Amino acid sequence: MAQNIYDNPAFFEGYARLPRSVQGLDGAPEWPALKSMLPDLAGRSVIDLGCGYGWFCRVAREQGAAEVIGVDISEKMLARAAELTDDVCIRYQRSDLESLELQDNCLDLVYSSLALHYLPELDTLFGKIQRALKPGGSLVFSIEHPIYTCATRQGWLTDDNGDRFWCVNRYQEQGKRVSNWLAEGVIKYHRTLGTTINALIKAGLTINEVNEWGPTQAQIDAWPALAEEAERPMLVLISACKPQ
Amino acid sequence: MAQNIYDNPAFFEGYARLPRSVQGLDGAPEWPALKSMLPDLAGRSVIDLGCGYGWFCRVAREQGAAEVIGVDISEKMLARAAELTDDVCIRYQRSDLESLELQDNCLDLVYSSLALHYLPELDTLFGKIQRALKPGGSLVFSIEHPIYTCATRQGWLTDDNGDRFWCVNRYQEQGKRVSNWLAEGVIKYHRTLGTTINALIKAGLTINEVNEWGPTQAQIDAWPALAEEAERPMLVLISACKPQ
Repeated sequence: MAQNIYDNPAFFEGYARLPRSVQGLDGAPEWPALKSMLPDLAGRSVIDLGCGYGWFCRVAREQGAAEVIGVDISEKMLARAAELTDDVCIRYQRSDLESLELQDNCLDLVYSSLALHYLPELDTLFGKIQRALKPGGSLVFSIEHPIYTCATRQGWLTDDNGDRFWCVNRYQEQGKRVSNWLAEGVIKYHRTLGTTINALIKAGLTINEVNEWGPTQAQIDAWPALAEEAERPMLVLISACKPQ
Repeated sequence: MAQNIYDNPAFFEGYARLPRSVQGLDGAPEWPALKSMLPDLAGRSVIDLGCGYGWFCRVAREQGAAEVIGVDISEKMLARAAELTDDVCIRYQRSDLESLELQDNCLDLVYSSLALHYLPELDTLFGKIQRALKPGGSLVFSIEHPIYTCATRQGWLTDDNGDRFWCVNRYQEQGKRVSNWLAEGVIKYHRTLGTTINALIKAGLTINEVNEWGPTQAQIDAWPALAEEAERPMLVLISACKPQ
């Protein structure tokens, strides 16, 4: 079962201060790329798995989605999400993504931002998503990149010439990784990119796009700390669809 | 235009001594995984892009392929390939993969082993392959993994705890890389995995499987030097098909 780290007070407090929490999607530099992968939302049924404060749920409604469900494991985040909207077409639901139940053939878009790397395995969820999507419906999600999650020690090393490198090892050793990001003992699961892609295909979805996200030069100019994201991908964005 | 490094005498001599040159496909540890991605070859038309000594061409015929074309840029390798068979259903053709011409709708399988990272761009070739495949036909290929090709310095670094890491940087900076593998100044092209996958999809092919190859424990036991291939992928194997 996935850890509910978002209800850990230290983690929640740290998370609440991140640009993506304060500014919403505009504080997430990968958002323009993720947005470009979305289908037209007008009149569509949308679910956001790991909705957090509900930023995407509100944006989906602004873009014309007929109904939006936001699912999250965190009581605190859902409480905040509920405070931020009085839109009756947005419904928040507390659930672990592993025990989530979805109706068949009812969704046009399943969206998920940086949530699926908390799950020990994805085959079950991808199977549920495939059944829940209408034919032609889309799954668009971001996840931590395996180059970012794999190593025994997350970080950089500098060689004798002063060149800085991101540390990669244990790439093929899939499974639990414990990091100390915002709080001690955050549990994530490392999977190769191939494993994630093949799980989608095995579930009956067709791959549309794989974006190992990196910043544009304009983004680096505006936010210089993003330069290191060009050295190694931290995120991967994937779009898949259920065949017509 | 791609460099013809295989006709460089130092490179050719080094290459001729590699296990995969001496023992053929059995000397290539990724071969069992690549083989598992192949369709049934009985009665099929097959092309091998970058066929080298023609090991795969001969195996394809042993597996019942009706006709096999082996294409390579290297005169020396094709001369050796021709010496190794008198099978009239195998035809060798000298061509750069960038100027290669293929007939439409005539191939069941396009195969390529560790050749496509020598090409400056893949969109043109993937387009030609898509047109040359019969509906339902497959493209199965291996290529150097971007984790292997990206960095300014290919190699390992050890941290203060004695842990060894593969060096990754410049991941998003796609393009030419010069390495000194078997000879000085070998030119390869780094592309993200997403770029390669998206180029296949854009060409009208459907992704079937992505295998960021790593050795099995049995392979490491039999060939201990392979252990480092589990720390970071050197190769990626991809299977795609032309929709029916």
